[in-house]
Amino acid sequence: MTTDQAYTNFPGPKIDGPTKISFLGPLGTFTEQALWKVAPAGAEIIPCTSVPQALDAVREGRAHRAVVPIENSIEGGVNATIDALSHGSPLVIVAEMVVEVSFELAVKPNPDGTMPEVKRIGTHPHAWAQCRKWVAETFPDAIHVPATSTAAAAQLLAEDDNPGFDAALCAKTSVKRYNLHAMYSGVADNKGAVTRFVMVAPLGSVPRPTGADKTTIQVRLPDNEAGALLSMLEQFSVRGVNLSRIESRPAGGPLGSYSFSIDIEGHVEDERVRAALVGLHRTCPLVRFIGSYPRVDGHRPTIQDGTRDEDFVYGREWIERVLKGEAN
Amino acid sequence: MTTDQAYTNFPGPKIDGPTKISFLGPLGTFTEQALWKVAPAGAEIIPCTSVPQALDAVREGRAHRAVVPIENSIEGGVNATIDALSHGSPLVIVAEMVVEVSFELAVKPNPDGTMPEVKRIGTHPHAWAQCRKWVAETFPDAIHVPATSTAAAAQLLAEDDNPGFDAALCAKTSVKRYNLHAMYSGVADNKGAVTRFVMVAPLGSVPRPTGADKTTIQVRLPDNEAGALLSMLEQFSVRGVNLSRIESRPAGGPLGSYSFSIDIEGHVEDERVRAALVGLHRTCPLVRFIGSYPRVDGHRPTIQDGTRDEDFVYGREWIERVLKGEAN
Amino acid sequence: MTTDQAYTNFPGPKIDGPTKISFLGPLGTFTEQALWKVAPAGAEIIPCTSVPQALDAVREGRAHRAVVPIENSIEGGVNATIDALSHGSPLVIVAEMVVEVSFELAVKPNPDGTMPEVKRIGTHPHAWAQCRKWVAETFPDAIHVPATSTAAAAQLLAEDDNPGFDAALCAKTSVKRYNLHAMYSGVADNKGAVTRFVMVAPLGSVPRPTGADKTTIQVRLPDNEAGALLSMLEQFSVRGVNLSRIESRPAGGPLGSYSFSIDIEGHVEDERVRAALVGLHRTCPLVRFIGSYPRVDGHRPTIQDGTRDEDFVYGREWIERVLKGEAN
Amino acid sequence: MTTDQAYTNFPGPKIDGPTKISFLGPLGTFTEQALWKVAPAGAEIIPCTSVPQALDAVREGRAHRAVVPIENSIEGGVNATIDALSHGSPLVIVAEMVVEVSFELAVKPNPDGTMPEVKRIGTHPHAWAQCRKWVAETFPDAIHVPATSTAAAAQLLAEDDNPGFDAALCAKTSVKRYNLHAMYSGVADNKGAVTRFVMVAPLGSVPRPTGADKTTIQVRLPDNEAGALLSMLEQFSVRGVNLSRIESRPAGGPLGSYSFSIDIEGHVEDERVRAALVGLHRTCPLVRFIGSYPRVDGHRPTIQDGTRDEDFVYGREWIERVLKGEAN
Repeated sequence: MTTDQAYTNFPGPKIDGPTKISFLGPLGTFTEQALWKVAPAGAEIIPCTSVPQALDAVREGRAHRAVVPIENSIEGGVNATIDALSHGSPLVIVAEMVVEVSFELAVKPNPDGTMPEVKRIGTHPHAWAQCRKWVAETFPDAIHVPATSTAAAAQLLAEDDNPGFDAALCAKTSVKRYNLHAMYSGVADNKGAVTRFVMVAPLGSVPRPTGADKTTIQVRLPDNEAGALLSMLEQFSVRGVNLSRIESRPAGGPLGSYSFSIDIEGHVEDERVRAALVGLHRTCPLVRFIGSYPRVDGHRPTIQDGTRDEDFVYGREWIERVLKGEAN
Repeated sequence: MTTDQAYTNFPGPKIDGPTKISFLGPLGTFTEQALWKVAPAGAEIIPCTSVPQALDAVREGRAHRAVVPIENSIEGGVNATIDALSHGSPLVIVAEMVVEVSFELAVKPNPDGTMPEVKRIGTHPHAWAQCRKWVAETFPDAIHVPATSTAAAAQLLAEDDNPGFDAALCAKTSVKRYNLHAMYSGVADNKGAVTRFVMVAPLGSVPRPTGADKTTIQVRLPDNEAGALLSMLEQFSVRGVNLSRIESRPAGGPLGSYSFSIDIEGHVEDERVRAALVGLHRTCPLVRFIGSYPRVDGHRPTIQDGTRDEDFVYGREWIERVLKGEAN
Repeated sequence: MTTDQAYTNFPGPKIDGPTKISFLGPLGTFTEQALWKVAPAGAEIIPCTSVPQALDAVREGRAHRAVVPIENSIEGGVNATIDALSHGSPLVIVAEMVVEVSFELAVKPNPDGTMPEVKRIGTHPHAWAQCRKWVAETFPDAIHVPATSTAAAAQLLAEDDNPGFDAALCAKTSVKRYNLHAMYSGVADNKGAVTRFVMVAPLGSVPRPTGADKTTIQVRLPDNEAGALLSMLEQFSVRGVNLSRIESRPAGGPLGSYSFSIDIEGHVEDERVRAALVGLHRTCPLVRFIGSYPRVDGHRPTIQDGTRDEDFVYGREWIERVLKGEAN
Repeated sequence: MTTDQAYTNFPGPKIDGPTKISFLGPLGTFTEQALWKVAPAGAEIIPCTSVPQALDAVREGRAHRAVVPIENSIEGGVNATIDALSHGSPLVIVAEMVVEVSFELAVKPNPDGTMPEVKRIGTHPHAWAQCRKWVAETFPDAIHVPATSTAAAAQLLAEDDNPGFDAALCAKTSVKRYNLHAMYSGVADNKGAVTRFVMVAPLGSVPRPTGADKTTIQVRLPDNEAGALLSMLEQFSVRGVNLSRIESRPAGGPLGSYSFSIDIEGHVEDERVRAALVGLHRTCPLVRFIGSYPRVDGHRPTIQDGTRDEDFVYGREWIERVLKGEAN
């Protein structure tokens, strides 16, 4: 997948001026890094203060696309994104991007060039969660001061006389942008941790299959039905469809009723995927299609015998002939 | 189902003269009884000496229909019928009939009007199997002399000076036809035993659904694949399709490879049945359709939520709109 | 498996004199051939006129063992054996034997040494079924005269002045025993057809596992329960147990209720087999154990990960520690 | 379940002085409310600044018990708790408590008794997420100032001259404790939202079954195995075990490998639950038992036929007799 394919293959709303892309801001976060992996040069980027706001910019015609985080290899699914895509007027994912997540411990050096003492560290709670062990070992007495984003912490540290903390855990781009000093680089409890981001567009025609695609859906299970999850998974297995991600989310009512956010290996144009989705549509109270799009890792699924497109087509042709009394 | 519906709804070959129906003969068997449950008055009936011969009469254009036994509540499936329908040029079942099976012990009275001593009993092996206990209790020393049919035993007893046995276990109609004396009536080890028969026609258009239908198929499982039977059954369960009969038959090669003869609750025009058959067609090396026809017991299947025809239709319509980018 | 192992490892009743083995007679059938594959030299063999009689000889202490056919690669399961093992006082299979099935067309030459004209052929209906095509090609006008066994047909042809047929389809041993002439040898519609036989013993200790074993059971499914067969198979699959044979048999009541005769890959002492049997015992109205015994083909099953004996043992030990609060 | 039962039935470490209970602080949060539902009067409560710290207090012998949130009906699972229970030295859940979650909008009235203008609202991000719509409707221009807890926001508002915000969304107890004024009460986007909390103890003997119990486990699925989740669920369904909660969590490696946090209906002493756990232990790379404890809602599970304790016991007894050759 090249940037251009992911972007240009997908029609969108008519909005004056250059391409506009909203994202979970502010500037300088990992989300902005992810955005530039797929955005065309010259795009106008619109930082938003929350995932719902970034998505609403697209829903309301103020942006062509939105870029938001959806999953972290350590922290798990980004609930705000999963939930926001599941509700409100429909949007679809048209591309995914992966960014390796490690942080800088940024400080503002003292006027004499020495480093400040680090007792309070400002950062977003997710960033804190991913560096907790490192902090415990490096600054055993340091405490967390929550910020709305890693970049907001960096900006506050740079621009506010009394930011309330001594150092910020933030992305490398924020260090540069705010002219801070990286006291430590590559900070992360788990080396190799990554965050996956998605580019979201208004409902419209679906990107063409590439052979290495993913389909995202949201499924609500029937309430209070023993075995409902098992039955749902059988709709996939009986058509040879594999899942690459499954996240449970509360369905919004009482404890114990769930929706599932699912990534399917394959494209909605694949016969086996379509058949599984029809099966879900029949048996689950709610299924929402949230996009078919190229996989960033280019992984092509193993297709089991009897689940190729032509297997479905031959099967239907056979039944048509049976119904006419021409075959058996 | 009335006789006329079952018969006249189904087109067939052009054969001169009256309707011709072959059956597993000779005259006077339970098969003939079954035949007259659905045959039009005035039909010409053609007794055959084996199931394959009765079916071949239809295949070769010498009869419009054939009537053969397919299952006995005590002895199980009639292998000759199941195997003959599974091979050769295709035929389809268009009606089923059930006949209660009990026998008469028929004798030829002595010239002085006394009953002969019963030491040897002539009958078909299946009839013998169904009366074995009764014979052991009633005539402990009697032995079995096999005959090609119960009616053949009756005829031999009536017409041959030296038939080789003293009594025949046969159907009531044979007692009358051959002017024998019923020494015992209603003979059967299991009261209520029944045999199910089918009327078979050339491949042509399928009888219309009545809401209480059955579909018969033959399925060959993939060889040497652990769990192949389980996977096959999941193709039914995931679409809410129930089976009313399943019989294993050797697939004809080495020991351990099997075909299954299956009766499905529902008609091939039912969406859930069609979808299950397409699933089998995709995943099994061989599926043969052997007819959709009204159930003789009029039992209407329970349709699970999400498996009505409209559920399948709505599901497909939804996917079509998803593919066009019009829905999610 | 050597003959001695199969035989001597298994204790049995005290019966005076030499080892006595009943079998489906008469002498000269394939069953006798199978018998001598495992019987000790010097055994006294007792031909019986039916499978139930051969089994009853063991049940009643008149024989140590019985040998009966259980499955033919063309005709399928031998219902009389499957049903007889499923009812009455319990017997267990202790060995299996396979015999290749082909026939001789035996005649009594005319006094002038010429061959008789073959118009009527005497044989057992199963033998007839296996040679039907060959007969149709070789003697298109010949008809079948049923006999209680292939050997009985041979004997009748040899000893009766008016046997009622001109030739007998029988085993090679019958040709010799009755001093007939083999007009054709190796007669069979399907080359390579085999019949499997079993040696049956009174209930007693189970033969030791050899690593290549089979376990035979009879299972009655719950009536009128959609998906009962699927649920039954899941009891096997969830423990990684494969089936090598499954035969449906009517359960004896109305049409549509079934028992299944099943061969399991493995020995009842294998943890995974035991666990599956306990699962069936819990959920099915009837399970009958009909023996664990060495496979005649020596095939050792593939054991899936997580289904070795030690996996079950470790799992139970873990739970015991969990219950005591010592582990988690 | 009474407080005493939940607490006193469970042995624990010897720690001098009164009962000590750590919890996710500070004072005045919903967690403290939950704590007092089960803690004995006179307990010494120890507020901690994070879930891991609260749990470590028990692990390190500084507290007898810890109380932490585990699930919110709107926001879903509390990842910090689920992850912390899954790693480190083992702890077990011994009780669960449910608290209805609604907030007060607390302010410090102006000196003249008028209400301040609400432009910035301090609270914990989870509380913010649950009141977002209400805020948008009531104070459309207000923005979120994150705090480490709702109680911390209340305290800061009460005690700091320049707290950085005008109002705090917090629990009712905080309003009282810090002598604030509740400008709005019962604030929540979803009426009836609840949070579930658990009381955690050191590994030791398991609380006795009450008939209405829950068992919590953590299961790691085999990597890269299509259908692994389906197979895992079958280990439950084949023993009639229902799940009341399932949450996916990243397994900590690359994207796409998952653990599942699961609540089972039933107690580890129930035969069906034990059998399912042994099945998971055999087939999954990791299973961790995290407690069996009384359900707060008193719901007793429906026990399917064939899954009662005695069904398992009878099944095992039968197999024992089969192995000795005494039954079949």
